[in-house]
Amino acid sequence: MTSVRVGICGLGTVGAGVVNLLQCNRDEILRKTGIRIDVAQIGCRRDNAECDISQVPTTRDIFDVVKNPDVDIVVELIGGTDVALELVKQALTNGKHVVTANKALIAQHGDEMFALADTFGVGLKFEASIAGGIPIVKAIREGLAGNRIERLAGIINGTSNYILTEMEASGSRTFDDVLVEAQGLGYAEADPTFDVEGIDAAHKLTLLSSIAFGVPLRFDAIYTEGISKVTSEDMRYAREFGYRIKHLGITTKSERGIELRVHPTLIEKTHLLAQVNGVMNAVLVDSDAAGQTLYYGAGAGGGPTASSVVADLIDLARDSSHGGRIPNLGFVTEALQKLPILNINETQSCFYLRLHVLDQPGVLARISSILAEHNISIESLIQKDARKALAPIAIITDDIVEQALVTAIAELEALDEVVGVVTRIRVESF
Amino acid sequence: MTSVRVGICGLGTVGAGVVNLLQCNRDEILRKTGIRIDVAQIGCRRDNAECDISQVPTTRDIFDVVKNPDVDIVVELIGGTDVALELVKQALTNGKHVVTANKALIAQHGDEMFALADTFGVGLKFEASIAGGIPIVKAIREGLAGNRIERLAGIINGTSNYILTEMEASGSRTFDDVLVEAQGLGYAEADPTFDVEGIDAAHKLTLLSSIAFGVPLRFDAIYTEGISKVTSEDMRYAREFGYRIKHLGITTKSERGIELRVHPTLIEKTHLLAQVNGVMNAVLVDSDAAGQTLYYGAGAGGGPTASSVVADLIDLARDSSHGGRIPNLGFVTEALQKLPILNINETQSCFYLRLHVLDQPGVLARISSILAEHNISIESLIQKDARKALAPIAIITDDIVEQALVTAIAELEALDEVVGVVTRIRVESF
Repeated sequence: MTSVRVGICGLGTVGAGVVNLLQCNRDEILRKTGIRIDVAQIGCRRDNAECDISQVPTTRDIFDVVKNPDVDIVVELIGGTDVALELVKQALTNGKHVVTANKALIAQHGDEMFALADTFGVGLKFEASIAGGIPIVKAIREGLAGNRIERLAGIINGTSNYILTEMEASGSRTFDDVLVEAQGLGYAEADPTFDVEGIDAAHKLTLLSSIAFGVPLRFDAIYTEGISKVTSEDMRYAREFGYRIKHLGITTKSERGIELRVHPTLIEKTHLLAQVNGVMNAVLVDSDAAGQTLYYGAGAGGGPTASSVVADLIDLARDSSHGGRIPNLGFVTEALQKLPILNINETQSCFYLRLHVLDQPGVLARISSILAEHNISIESLIQKDARKALAPIAIITDDIVEQALVTAIAELEALDEVVGVVTRIRVESF
Repeated sequence: MTSVRVGICGLGTVGAGVVNLLQCNRDEILRKTGIRIDVAQIGCRRDNAECDISQVPTTRDIFDVVKNPDVDIVVELIGGTDVALELVKQALTNGKHVVTANKALIAQHGDEMFALADTFGVGLKFEASIAGGIPIVKAIREGLAGNRIERLAGIINGTSNYILTEMEASGSRTFDDVLVEAQGLGYAEADPTFDVEGIDAAHKLTLLSSIAFGVPLRFDAIYTEGISKVTSEDMRYAREFGYRIKHLGITTKSERGIELRVHPTLIEKTHLLAQVNGVMNAVLVDSDAAGQTLYYGAGAGGGPTASSVVADLIDLARDSSHGGRIPNLGFVTEALQKLPILNINETQSCFYLRLHVLDQPGVLARISSILAEHNISIESLIQKDARKALAPIAIITDDIVEQALVTAIAELEALDEVVGVVTRIRVESF
């Protein structure tokens, strides 16, 4: 019987999940592949009581694993981008396929690593690095391979989606309040910056954009905005206008170039994407033949992430002769196109605006003329409590190039009647 | 440059969609695969103005295509199960891979055809036969390959989902009324039996069950119930209980065997599956590692179906040396298990019951004692207008083996106070 030998580097939650899954489902995987997937070695700083590795050779030096001639495929689960980069490069150079869940590593050093993988004729697979257990990389690289993908929008950070869902459900809780709860539940890290400021989502979107459009990885050019400034007041207005606020990664391709942006977004509340709650993830793909398809599932956790790691292992096992059957980025390397990444100011959206104004005659007229001067049409407007000394106004604008809006907002903020900053959230329709 | 040569049999909506997609996206597909996919021959009874085939050799005898030595892969899009079966068998026997969108053909003759494909070492691919443009076959066979799948539930017939969605949205329209509208819009056939009586969904579920669990195709053993008896009264009660009614195909695997059933189902109205509206399709998969994942998209139409046909073509092109890298049914042939298919009476569900009773003292007591005698617990009950001569009662029961419910319903219907039949719809929680 054929077998492939796997070396696992890192034995945290995901590592233990992979070990357990390969053990528990050994027979089922054998039924599906006819191939035994054996763990030949595990490199980890310490053991993990979550899994039984008594039958597996272990080492405290993870670099032993990438040098081990008994290892065909290296699974990189140590995280970080320094040691991990060195580890993956050595593994590829030694002719070993690599499977990783490390989105930061690929977003920042992918181009270098994929080139190395090409040179040594091996695969570098990363299904587990985006959206946990959802086979989204496979759906895009293979399932939709006949399509020209036009746009992709995803809820790809469970922490942010959990916080927004709770804020929305309660109607009044603040970001800070829910964040503390999420930390208590283990849904947010002690330092939550990576998740709530959108950096994790930006890593994932960088990868998604590359496999959707066949462009090099451009984490350096992505626009990133987190959820820490979203208020329950904005959520209430959004709901009144018929929307919900979700934290989305959005990438599009047009003749002008690639849009690559992560930010809170108002989306129609009846759309399926608006119904994705809690820590769950979902990715929506607009493509020319299949139309709109959506992929939903758990975005994190040992089991779901292990599911995707093992799917990559099975793909490589079923095809161990050549890791290159499906190009790592879904497009053949020579076909990758260095398209321009649009600056966020060049992109076009509808916008939600919220501002607080002093109760003075003509204030609405002055606001609307500033918008009109910049060719910004008002789609909907809500003004309540106009007699209060400080009254809120919420506006949904028509489609406009962001630069025009930025200029208009500066002029609005300069008005004596406008107090404080103008809140601005993009609106997308799907 | 490598190329593969495709012969297309049948040039209806899907055939034209495939021709157009291969033409329009030729460059994009080349970027993704490095392989040219050429249409070498088209066999069709008549031309189709929807596509330009002036550059392609055509024949009026589709059997020319499967004999053509210039054809590597045959795309079967003629529909039906007689000529199509003969065509596919000849193609496989001649050593050609086959791609088909024909669910009826595979559900009824798959075992024979897959055996033939094995014998001749070629692939028989059918992504397009289930859920249109959603890459659900790939998600199950590959994306979730590391998982033990436990349950699968799908909205896999767009016509039925459209009718139920419209009935629900209007609150009062009848099945017949909406059906006529659906026929006018082209969402339902002149003879709608296949769709609204669940046969089309049963074909698709048969395939899904095989690739999820690695069992032979058992269309002969599937339980099938359509939507023609669903009333807007049931929909209103369902909503009051917190549910919506969807037409689902459900298959599960347990130690007792395989459940394989297609029927209207009450599902919690907040679940994502309950939000899938109109002609859209969605498939929910419960698996041990990934947990719950859901796949959503257009279930029919030239573009979406062509997207899946071309995905299969690209898979075969990327792997033309051996069609057997991924087994046709997702499991190696020797590993297929002939598990028992449970009779519907052996399956277990919660149930929604609706009955009309005469206004007589003690009627509720008699109904509840009959249910209690069969160990059927009442979860919720709504009785309105009890003073009317004929009052409706709606009940949600606890989990119960279907046989017990069938017996209880017969006893209920025998009561003098119960008028007419007892309506019964299964309830599932996800």
